[in-house]
Amino acid sequence: MAFPGHCVTLSRPGESPPDGSDSTVNTLPLPSPLRTAALVVMVFATLVARAADPLPSWNDTGPKRALTAFVEKVTREGSPDFLPPSERIAVFDNDGTLWCEQPMYPQVMFAVDRLRTLAPKHPEWRRRQPFKKLMDAGPDRLVSVTDQELIEIIKVTHTGMTTDEFADIVRAWIATAKHPRTGRLYTEMVYQPMLELLAYLRGHGFKTFIVSAGGVEFMRVWADQVYGVPTDQVVGTTFKTSYELRGTTPVIVRQPKVDFVDDGPGKPIGINKFIGKRPVLAFGNADGDFQMLQWTTTGPGPRLGLLVHHTDGVREYDYDAQSAVGRLDKALVAASGYGWTVVSMKDDWAKIFPKGP
Amino acid sequence: MAFPGHCVTLSRPGESPPDGSDSTVNTLPLPSPLRTAALVVMVFATLVARAADPLPSWNDTGPKRALTAFVEKVTREGSPDFLPPSERIAVFDNDGTLWCEQPMYPQVMFAVDRLRTLAPKHPEWRRRQPFKKLMDAGPDRLVSVTDQELIEIIKVTHTGMTTDEFADIVRAWIATAKHPRTGRLYTEMVYQPMLELLAYLRGHGFKTFIVSAGGVEFMRVWADQVYGVPTDQVVGTTFKTSYELRGTTPVIVRQPKVDFVDDGPGKPIGINKFIGKRPVLAFGNADGDFQMLQWTTTGPGPRLGLLVHHTDGVREYDYDAQSAVGRLDKALVAASGYGWTVVSMKDDWAKIFPKGP
Repeated sequence: MAFPGHCVTLSRPGESPPDGSDSTVNTLPLPSPLRTAALVVMVFATLVARAADPLPSWNDTGPKRALTAFVEKVTREGSPDFLPPSERIAVFDNDGTLWCEQPMYPQVMFAVDRLRTLAPKHPEWRRRQPFKKLMDAGPDRLVSVTDQELIEIIKVTHTGMTTDEFADIVRAWIATAKHPRTGRLYTEMVYQPMLELLAYLRGHGFKTFIVSAGGVEFMRVWADQVYGVPTDQVVGTTFKTSYELRGTTPVIVRQPKVDFVDDGPGKPIGINKFIGKRPVLAFGNADGDFQMLQWTTTGPGPRLGLLVHHTDGVREYDYDAQSAVGRLDKALVAASGYGWTVVSMKDDWAKIFPKGP
Repeated sequence: MAFPGHCVTLSRPGESPPDGSDSTVNTLPLPSPLRTAALVVMVFATLVARAADPLPSWNDTGPKRALTAFVEKVTREGSPDFLPPSERIAVFDNDGTLWCEQPMYPQVMFAVDRLRTLAPKHPEWRRRQPFKKLMDAGPDRLVSVTDQELIEIIKVTHTGMTTDEFADIVRAWIATAKHPRTGRLYTEMVYQPMLELLAYLRGHGFKTFIVSAGGVEFMRVWADQVYGVPTDQVVGTTFKTSYELRGTTPVIVRQPKVDFVDDGPGKPIGINKFIGKRPVLAFGNADGDFQMLQWTTTGPGPRLGLLVHHTDGVREYDYDAQSAVGRLDKALVAASGYGWTVVSMKDDWAKIFPKGP
């Protein structure tokens, strides 16, 4: 997630989600006992294949082979590249790497929904930009906002309340808000191959961290449930807070002042500040992840950087250098020089969404 | 650790460490076979007692009972106070809570040692305070410095280098620097009862964090080895850093600008920022821990706050409200009102240091 000049769309759920049902088992033209035996063998073979393949949604192409070879060599006792568990640090960007960021970062959608909820209590917004143009445009129109205007929107929607109140607001939104194209919950717009990868890495002793330009306290509400990443392993952009007493009750209040921007060069800084170790695996999808991959992959010893390239306009979205949301340009050009693995979503992922194609 | 007006002492190892050898097994006045049987029984009983008591360095007094009762009630399935592992967050102050902070915070001793190392390259320090008075005083004299002067000392000794270079400097110091009174390594001046408590809590599914006013990158170098706390579970005071390229090699450079002060009200803020969950257990020893204990113990559900009171002038140090280092005044007065458990080191700890009494 980055904050370039954005078009904020206020569109509503439209398209039906593509059919996400599993393919059915073929019936076999065999006599009954043989058929039973064949089915048993088939089921057994399927179970074995599943047990043997922790990454079933990854096609057997370069990226999957690079990932499994890397994990094997750093976790096998006696391997020259063996890393003790304390060194097995993997960092993941969120928007566009773990979940869908198109047509607009979900956190921006949250902010716009929140603006609409708050608007009746703020008649002054009818006369003040960028609020006026958003109010005027209605729910299905694209509205262009500048960086500064987006920050203004984020401030009025993300600060001024206690941390507990903000968590409740996010919790209520994420439980019901739908992706405008698929009509699915945003938490269903996560990438199945990456869920498998997170679990695969943790199963091999890796500690998995999110390192995102998104707001820490926006992600923490649902990251454990959705990704299995606990709150203290979520690194992101933060606002200043203050510790206050309301009567005798202490609260932490979110202040309208950005504390730390976890994007671009901010990502290695955030990694150092919150994690305190140089990762050996980094996963991103945009130019905002360039320095994170650079920092991760230029250290000594075994390292792997991976870029998710959004090449599937049918099952997801097709975008890179020309996109205002999740622009991938400089990092893609640099990938081969740094030896980064590039995942083509179209070619390398057999399945994209848990409940979709 | 706090930064009130300090006396920085430059004294050297003096006293010999007290004898740290274990007590010997008494011989029994019994005929040989019976003696053997009795010894077997004794050894067995000792093993059982050890297995049954994860906190052998805690006397069987109020604090130990409060701790074990708390852990039992929040970890027993079916208990009305049961907490899932994700909620089992325990936070520990470092200086004076996990290791000895007298006669001066070890990080300040590090800074002063570092000043002395750097002095030959800084002839201008001979004419500039606070450096001049430290240089003039020599290694065994107390020198009074103001808050501002201490910050100046910390800046010139803790910033300007890369994060890797700083880690190497700390690593070299901590491996050899000795406590001025006992002549032991600082990492041997940790509290045995707290090491047992950390392990006991982790054994019951707690995630243990350090939340200290000390520098994050000073502690991270040795916290895993000494306390079993990984780098990403160390919260503390931070300096700003920058991400830079030296040729084609990226580095993170420590800047002479304080980023975040993790002390007093900064502790709950740091907890929220780095951990993202309200702890259920908090351990401190000074007024700088007041808000951390307040924040931890005023939330809903089962909670426990504990203050270590330095009451043992023979085995350690005896200090509280009058001490410039680790002052305990306001928090001790407030303890009973908040229901905090107060540990008297003299009465409640059977043993203080791993290699000492």
